[in-house]
Amino acid sequence: MANIAKKVSWSSRAEESGAAGERTPLFNGSEQPRLSRQLSGGGSVFQIGRLSTVDLEEEITSDEDSLRGRPKEIPHNEKLLSLKYESLDYDNIENQLFLEEERRMSYMGFRCLEISRWVVCGLIGFLTGLIACFIDIAVEELAGIKYRVVKQNIEKFTEVGGLSISLILWAVLNASIVMLGAIIVAFFEPIAAGSGIPQIKCYLNGVKIPRVVRLKTLVVKVCGVICSVVGGLAVGKEGPMIHSGAVVAAGVSQGRSTSLKRDFKIFEYFRRDTEKRDFVSAGAAAGVSAAFGAPVGGVLFALEEGASFWNQMLTWRIFFASMISTFTLNFFLSIYHKNPGDLSNPGLINFGRFESDSGAYNLYEIPLFIAMGAIGGLLGALFNVLNYWLTIFRIRYVHRPCLQVMEAMLVAAVTATVSFTMIYFSNDCQPLGPEHNEEYPLQLFCADGEYNSMATAFFNTPERSVRSLFHNQPGTYNPLTLGLFTLTYFFLACWTYGLAVSAGVFIPSLLIGAAWGRLFGILLASITSNGSIWADPGKYALIGAAAQLGGIVRMTLSLTVIMVEATGNVTYGLPIMLVLMTAKIVGDYFVEGLYDIHIKLQSVPFLHLEAPATSHWLTAREVMGSPVTCLNRIEKVGTIVDILSNTSTNHNGFPVVVQVTGSDEPAKLCGLILRSQLIVLLKHKVFVELARSRLTQRKLQLKDFRDAYPRFPPIQSIHVSQDERECMMDLTEFMNATPYTVPQETSLPRVFKLFRALGLRHLVVVDDENRVVGLVTRKDLARYHLGKHGLEELQVAQT
Amino acid sequence: MANIAKKVSWSSRAEESGAAGERTPLFNGSEQPRLSRQLSGGGSVFQIGRLSTVDLEEEITSDEDSLRGRPKEIPHNEKLLSLKYESLDYDNIENQLFLEEERRMSYMGFRCLEISRWVVCGLIGFLTGLIACFIDIAVEELAGIKYRVVKQNIEKFTEVGGLSISLILWAVLNASIVMLGAIIVAFFEPIAAGSGIPQIKCYLNGVKIPRVVRLKTLVVKVCGVICSVVGGLAVGKEGPMIHSGAVVAAGVSQGRSTSLKRDFKIFEYFRRDTEKRDFVSAGAAAGVSAAFGAPVGGVLFALEEGASFWNQMLTWRIFFASMISTFTLNFFLSIYHKNPGDLSNPGLINFGRFESDSGAYNLYEIPLFIAMGAIGGLLGALFNVLNYWLTIFRIRYVHRPCLQVMEAMLVAAVTATVSFTMIYFSNDCQPLGPEHNEEYPLQLFCADGEYNSMATAFFNTPERSVRSLFHNQPGTYNPLTLGLFTLTYFFLACWTYGLAVSAGVFIPSLLIGAAWGRLFGILLASITSNGSIWADPGKYALIGAAAQLGGIVRMTLSLTVIMVEATGNVTYGLPIMLVLMTAKIVGDYFVEGLYDIHIKLQSVPFLHLEAPATSHWLTAREVMGSPVTCLNRIEKVGTIVDILSNTSTNHNGFPVVVQVTGSDEPAKLCGLILRSQLIVLLKHKVFVELARSRLTQRKLQLKDFRDAYPRFPPIQSIHVSQDERECMMDLTEFMNATPYTVPQETSLPRVFKLFRALGLRHLVVVDDENRVVGLVTRKDLARYHLGKHGLEELQVAQT
Repeated sequence: MANIAKKVSWSSRAEESGAAGERTPLFNGSEQPRLSRQLSGGGSVFQIGRLSTVDLEEEITSDEDSLRGRPKEIPHNEKLLSLKYESLDYDNIENQLFLEEERRMSYMGFRCLEISRWVVCGLIGFLTGLIACFIDIAVEELAGIKYRVVKQNIEKFTEVGGLSISLILWAVLNASIVMLGAIIVAFFEPIAAGSGIPQIKCYLNGVKIPRVVRLKTLVVKVCGVICSVVGGLAVGKEGPMIHSGAVVAAGVSQGRSTSLKRDFKIFEYFRRDTEKRDFVSAGAAAGVSAAFGAPVGGVLFALEEGASFWNQMLTWRIFFASMISTFTLNFFLSIYHKNPGDLSNPGLINFGRFESDSGAYNLYEIPLFIAMGAIGGLLGALFNVLNYWLTIFRIRYVHRPCLQVMEAMLVAAVTATVSFTMIYFSNDCQPLGPEHNEEYPLQLFCADGEYNSMATAFFNTPERSVRSLFHNQPGTYNPLTLGLFTLTYFFLACWTYGLAVSAGVFIPSLLIGAAWGRLFGILLASITSNGSIWADPGKYALIGAAAQLGGIVRMTLSLTVIMVEATGNVTYGLPIMLVLMTAKIVGDYFVEGLYDIHIKLQSVPFLHLEAPATSHWLTAREVMGSPVTCLNRIEKVGTIVDILSNTSTNHNGFPVVVQVTGSDEPAKLCGLILRSQLIVLLKHKVFVELARSRLTQRKLQLKDFRDAYPRFPPIQSIHVSQDERECMMDLTEFMNATPYTVPQETSLPRVFKLFRALGLRHLVVVDDENRVVGLVTRKDLARYHLGKHGLEELQVAQT
Repeated sequence: MANIAKKVSWSSRAEESGAAGERTPLFNGSEQPRLSRQLSGGGSVFQIGRLSTVDLEEEITSDEDSLRGRPKEIPHNEKLLSLKYESLDYDNIENQLFLEEERRMSYMGFRCLEISRWVVCGLIGFLTGLIACFIDIAVEELAGIKYRVVKQNIEKFTEVGGLSISLILWAVLNASIVMLGAIIVAFFEPIAAGSGIPQIKCYLNGVKIPRVVRLKTLVVKVCGVICSVVGGLAVGKEGPMIHSGAVVAAGVSQGRSTSLKRDFKIFEYFRRDTEKRDFVSAGAAAGVSAAFGAPVGGVLFALEEGASFWNQMLTWRIFFASMISTFTLNFFLSIYHKNPGDLSNPGLINFGRFESDSGAYNLYEIPLFIAMGAIGGLLGALFNVLNYWLTIFRIRYVHRPCLQVMEAMLVAAVTATVSFTMIYFSNDCQPLGPEHNEEYPLQLFCADGEYNSMATAFFNTPERSVRSLFHNQPGTYNPLTLGLFTLTYFFLACWTYGLAVSAGVFIPSLLIGAAWGRLFGILLASITSNGSIWADPGKYALIGAAAQLGGIVRMTLSLTVIMVEATGNVTYGLPIMLVLMTAKIVGDYFVEGLYDIHIKLQSVPFLHLEAPATSHWLTAREVMGSPVTCLNRIEKVGTIVDILSNTSTNHNGFPVVVQVTGSDEPAKLCGLILRSQLIVLLKHKVFVELARSRLTQRKLQLKDFRDAYPRFPPIQSIHVSQDERECMMDLTEFMNATPYTVPQETSLPRVFKLFRALGLRHLVVVDDENRVVGLVTRKDLARYHLGKHGLEELQVAQT
């Protein structure tokens, strides 16, 4: 694999020099070229060649060249790029209809639009806050009932003996609650599994993940996450909030629900990918904001994970949505906590206030923090590697829904058993002080007035456990308890992530990190004589939590701000930054972040922000898909139907060309039209019958396109009669007349920059006569990837 | 002016339909077209037409059409766009030399480059922190001496009478210190005046402001700001830190100093606009970070003000620079304050820690905060309007350096006099408590053990005054003191901003806001019976400060984060956001932000993030400069010299075209070359002599271009003999062979998006045969501007 980079380079160079002399136009209107090119040599590990045998009848190939790379067996690994994912179009389709509408709109019209954008963002924030509130209260209440029942049971049996009955009760309770959560996810909406962050990352990146922003997904997600947390799994409810916010945004901004079959006839202007993406990023930010009480962190999350084009107004609206979201959650929770109007404790998770006096740190602690960052990076990498293997195993063997439900139940039961065993064998008894903040202290075999310390960590919702680790008095935990807890919880959390339940990985990571961080602090204090300066193990717990989370998810800027906002104190800003940077550098040395691993395992054509560094060898000529299926400006309906029906190619964008009548000059590019547009045109029978001109072309409105968005019917559902097939269709009005183009010699980084900065879906490659020679799509760019040994090329497969 | 928008639209439509039929190629290699177009009708307020009479000999016009719009008198107003500003090129020049270098570079090479980027950012942070530290200590020490001298003097004369001598001493001291600062600015480096934030904004936007990032500017800036603050002007030292950081970044990243004539032969790869811009944004962020102890705020500032293309790695490096900067400052200041190693109090200004218990706020306070935001917006707008008039006055009448110095001295003397008078007539005596934090308490006519409260506000560095207003016990100031202070300081600050001294507007704004905010809090407490809940006037001072600053500068996201980081407490995040949003909305209703006003008054072609909303009427055809001076791929040296020497046009970018030999087909676009590149080629005599081929073309390296960057010699300094004029120059290797192009029909918003997202300098407009028809530059886009009454077009002038 080490020499793939060279191979690609060589072959591309060879071709470059070979083609330089001729520069033949590959396509010119009616006649299709026979050129088939093969980039790689025969001995390559990856078969990166294009069509080597071309069906002469069907050689009108395309932007999404499905024949490229046909592996014998499709291994589920990250060296693959799936063709099943379609792209979103973050470039406005500037056709005549659109321009006319924009030109018709007055200045006041634009102002109104701007105001509606703000209203929508406000609504998104409000609803996201409400959902967060609902999840929080539901978890609080249900978990309260569960823990009280189990506690009573344990207390009863501690006295009379027979604690195994308590264990069974606990395990069965957990397993049945988790079963409920797993069933709805596995059978009704598998996309609602996990935290949803990888999916939202992909969506914002421009990949269409089916059903990711539907109402049903939201409902399943919310119910699922309540079940997972109440079921005692090693999960958090924060990650799913981000997904929930995104779904809310996608729903509200469209002013209708396709699932509920309700169209409120509002916000119709926003029914296109570009606008929807902006709102979805606001939704994701609102989700982060509600989860962690971190509005600025939410904005940075949306930017770090999603957007590439920075826009002040958009950022500000995102900020507004985040703010409203925290505010709403805060307000309703303050009522729930019987302290209405007190708004100073935002967020689903609150790390509790670190007081500044006890929390100051010194210069000589910086190297310690960096060391902790390195440990976090190592442990994070270990977590990710284990989870990677587990996920591969799951993809291969646990793909049937009932198996998935059973696995989830097994994990729930094991979690309960392990917790119980740990608590049972622990003899770490701590006095019940006046300031204890344990909700459900378990006495077990401890003396009266004492409680079992291990139970604080296990017999609690993870959020409360984190807070205890941060804030309990020094000496509350003994080192053995913390060590054992870290060890068991690490493996439990790793096993849990990837189950078919809705659940986040933030809180478990924080909990693991807080545990070993506190342990680190205690050990430090014990090995130095001067114990007073290390007095606050809570500080080390915080740093450990940051290190562990950073080591797993590898976020930097946004995570720093989220942590700072959640602790309510900027004093720790600098150490948290240092720790996150170290964790990322150390972790990246071994393996990618957890979300990226899962994205890769799904073979999603994810575009990073820049082309691989060593890709200047490649030019548009090598990366583009070619030859291209083009349409004439006035095209026969039959041809269009045939092209769209061709399931083997399934193209989504078609350059439109025009031939000067009566001349034999080659056709020039004059526009670009999308499959979805053609579908709408066919559905509305926008045909002109040649010669007789009986059927005049019906005037189509932008509204017709917006009504069909985003679920355009498949071509099979549209009936076109034999007569109609002979009609013509005039695409002039509907095509994007000014698609972005690049010459063939453009280097890959330059193509990449244009593509990524403008959020394109199709980029037309033209020769110096403005004739179409190729089309660059997301998959053409996502294929190139910088591995440990230089440039690698991913296999493209029809998974 | 109200109907300009319509006029532009009409004329453009007329032209569009008129030109639709013919679509004549405007330029085809050798023959220049005679087409001259006039967009606007005769009666328009702005003469927006192009050349109406064309000199037949010199009609090869250009990207920067200097003949366009020749006003009789150049009024210094914001409806003007100056041609004197050149643009920076944030698009890589991907010519053969560049691509060869990139291809030669191994993967390790790129890794090393990446590491050097980090090293440079670390250095930037370190040096910026050191400079901040130097400024802080210098101000602290010098101001200390000054205040002690004046205080002794006042104490002496309070007893014996004759305080007018103290007044004179104070005024003379201030005026002479300020004179020093004004002299170096006005006579040596006028660009160092003010805060430098508008200049850095422009630089990051892509406008080349002469001498803005030179070493001399830095020296003058640092000395100037020390003089201004010590001289007792109503200024802060924080704004200039941002400029200083940017200069440091520009210097360090280039690995040489042209001023010192030292070239360290390192970082040569970074000698181009794109890389330099990235480092300058890191420098600006480091400056903010050092000034306010706000690393995250710094990053957001750099993004909000500068970048449009969000890049994770870049952001992270910026973050690193910010972090190192705060850290360095913090570390050295902790040593200076004899508390080495304590890193929890970062930043030049520290708002002091707001304790969370006293600082909680309630829901019913939110409307009050919003009302304060509105007041801030109103007062900010008033400040900006007054300053706008003052600036116009200064541009017209106070443009000679000695006048500027005298004005600065006058302001210094007046400031001292007003302060003295206010203190003298104030009878607000407060007891000197044990926890008083006044550095220089003035007793004056107060009883023993008491001090004059007005003096806390005036007889102090502004940073200390702000902190007193935030944290002094309730009851420390009486309302009259605060009211008078707000009033006088408001006008003083407004008069001061724009003087020929280095000084920032952040701290004065905060001070004004804190004063009226505290007043607001006190009044609230007095009008409600239940005084306890309004107990903390410091909270209202903070909100007032945010409102006032937001009303003046109109930053949102970054300012929120800066304020939160400077207070060290996220509790106030939500109210600060609300207040800043309100202040911006209210303020924007009346007038733009202070920085934008100053940018407009300089007639800088500043590009906002999006095209004006109602500009879909316009297409590339209307906005482009046309006809274009093109060069042939193999061009005669004499022609090139003549074109470059043409001072009336002074173009900077030339499309390169190629003509198929022997055919009469029109020439096609094949590249783009810059003036700076041609200059280097001419300087190195890269000529081929036709026929004899005696002189073979010398092989030029990228190094030659990098050595000349960024101060390319003018064409006049290059001697080309008559023989050499007959030689040919082959541009193939040097031109950017794949410039971005758009078709003529592309709408303005689309052109704008491409231009802005990729940071272009020249965008070639081609027809459907790939022939050059026009060139879009920054000025063509910046001309269109959304005024209160719709689309307006700015006048372009050769100021």
